[in-house]
Amino acid sequence: MDRVSVKLGSDSYDIIVGQNITEHLESLYKEVGNFSKIAIISDLNVSRLYLGKIKKNLSISEVSVCSLEISDGEGTKDWNNLKFIVEWLIKNKLDRDGLIIALGGGVIGDLVGFAASITKRGISLVQMPTTLLSQVDSSVGGKTAINSVSGKNLIGTFFQPKMVLTEINTLNSLTERHFLSGMGEVIKYGLISDKTFFSWIEKNIQQIKVRNPHIISEMILKSCKIKAKIVEKDEKEKGSRALLNLGHTFGHALEAFTGYSNTLLHGEAVAIGTVLAFRFSEFLKKGSSVDIERVTSVYFKLGMKHRLKDIPAPLPNIPTLLDFMLQDKKIKNDRLVFILPTRLGHCIIDDQISMQTLHSFLERCL
Amino acid sequence: MDRVSVKLGSDSYDIIVGQNITEHLESLYKEVGNFSKIAIISDLNVSRLYLGKIKKNLSISEVSVCSLEISDGEGTKDWNNLKFIVEWLIKNKLDRDGLIIALGGGVIGDLVGFAASITKRGISLVQMPTTLLSQVDSSVGGKTAINSVSGKNLIGTFFQPKMVLTEINTLNSLTERHFLSGMGEVIKYGLISDKTFFSWIEKNIQQIKVRNPHIISEMILKSCKIKAKIVEKDEKEKGSRALLNLGHTFGHALEAFTGYSNTLLHGEAVAIGTVLAFRFSEFLKKGSSVDIERVTSVYFKLGMKHRLKDIPAPLPNIPTLLDFMLQDKKIKNDRLVFILPTRLGHCIIDDQISMQTLHSFLERCL
Repeated sequence: MDRVSVKLGSDSYDIIVGQNITEHLESLYKEVGNFSKIAIISDLNVSRLYLGKIKKNLSISEVSVCSLEISDGEGTKDWNNLKFIVEWLIKNKLDRDGLIIALGGGVIGDLVGFAASITKRGISLVQMPTTLLSQVDSSVGGKTAINSVSGKNLIGTFFQPKMVLTEINTLNSLTERHFLSGMGEVIKYGLISDKTFFSWIEKNIQQIKVRNPHIISEMILKSCKIKAKIVEKDEKEKGSRALLNLGHTFGHALEAFTGYSNTLLHGEAVAIGTVLAFRFSEFLKKGSSVDIERVTSVYFKLGMKHRLKDIPAPLPNIPTLLDFMLQDKKIKNDRLVFILPTRLGHCIIDDQISMQTLHSFLERCL
Repeated sequence: MDRVSVKLGSDSYDIIVGQNITEHLESLYKEVGNFSKIAIISDLNVSRLYLGKIKKNLSISEVSVCSLEISDGEGTKDWNNLKFIVEWLIKNKLDRDGLIIALGGGVIGDLVGFAASITKRGISLVQMPTTLLSQVDSSVGGKTAINSVSGKNLIGTFFQPKMVLTEINTLNSLTERHFLSGMGEVIKYGLISDKTFFSWIEKNIQQIKVRNPHIISEMILKSCKIKAKIVEKDEKEKGSRALLNLGHTFGHALEAFTGYSNTLLHGEAVAIGTVLAFRFSEFLKKGSSVDIERVTSVYFKLGMKHRLKDIPAPLPNIPTLLDFMLQDKKIKNDRLVFILPTRLGHCIIDDQISMQTLHSFLERCL
């Protein structure tokens, strides 16, 4: 059982990563505080696998536990479910001395985190992420969200959990495709700020593929450490936190175009977007093609989608793709913000790129 | 034109109070920052009176201004309107470089403040309160809210504005009853922390009644200063900010019982609740009846409702009232939290009162 601390003053918290940590729930619970009530919210699949076990290990005297299961999928992150959860929490008398546990993947974490942040202006939250993607990304850093009718994650809050509990055994039930989707974010961490981590991934590809628990545990810890450092410097994304969006400017647009469906998973879109960002950087003479080869080679060896042609659907034309890109949050004074790799382990934030330059680049790709 | 600073680190801001400050909008706007877009949201009544003038005085080159009017009343603070405003802001491409102005009373301030806080995880906000109640209370301190199906203000965030612009000319269009409702909160400030301010109110009752602009301006400034100091010490209401709830534990229950309708305005409920809190304090042998006489005398001279019998509706029985009290946010480990006056200008927070004691007290009142 290992830990990463996220240091944000009075909002600091620990990320616990390990195997069988569910068995130590009671002592971990006591670290977080004393609560009069606990509400566990999960999706139907996750609850079937883990809810009973967690409830059993949380049977603390004088604390009542209630639970709610909701359906899974990106479509779940909407106004209706937000309202449903918040009103359910209030009806179940969760107050400022209550604790909410978000048990599930990124959808559950984002949605339940948002609900926790606005119910009675904030109820304590513990994230228990159950997918690789949520363990290395969405459960860390306090971003919560639902989707707007105009785009993904456009509505939400910054709300830090009291603890993140990452039980890596939950990855056993993850499909190959969803596991590899999570790798899209893992590899990103190496590329934005830690060449050594990227090299470590290169060396451990086979162990990652067979999901060696020690290697996976180390990989998640390293990823969380990188994310924690970036979030500590810029919690509310006024500057450098934007580095985490490597691959997302292109990636989100592709996800939006494919309707946030099973056609293209988030981590797949990030991998494809990352390669595009590397190519864009080379096009702008800010990065090198040697680096691109090393990056694509890792994606390839892991069996990950990373090229536009890996999307099993017709591609958008340039005006359509630009339109989707302009609907994103990552816009400053009407300019798109790009994260551009200059070398392995180092990126810059650029919001001065003209639409004409972008258009010329996209003409080469599409 | 006077100012009160609310010092909350990087979330600090100024409250500007004065007559005709609307004419200085452009220079005040420049203090807040440079924005690419401004969205003004107000209710239908307020917009009819002030929106044109404000738009004219905000006609800054290169900044586009859009506006939205919504219907007024406590019923407006619901999920539907929250969703409507947030989606409207997103469709109008308000991003992190945009500014939202909430122009109206407490309903607009609470609802628009909430919408601003969750749109793209927070867009800059300026509050322009147009009622006495919102000028001295809801616009200051960053509480935002909508109502839950289970109770008032149970859903919301803490979100500080970039500035509060209090144009006291807007009070000219306020009815006598709504003006006096605002006085419920004004008098509260003297009672919780400033006996000198309470004596100042006693001395200036006639000038307050005729709404002498200099006296009103001073009164609003003094009120905001007291609230600012309390909020600075405890922004997220983990302790002493609860003092601001003097009169609210009883008051909110009475408002809930009368359906948050025109039968009982918020400030009226606060005044009635404050007298009950004084009487409860005396009942518990923590306060004196001499103080009660001075307080009720001020309410009486101003012509304010302050007794249970002033409510133009049948009163609840004890179990019903207790039920409404227990639905409040002001509950800690299933115990009601009371703000009890010990002497003029001083209150204590008590969460150790048994239901039996409360019941005995209510038997005397109802």
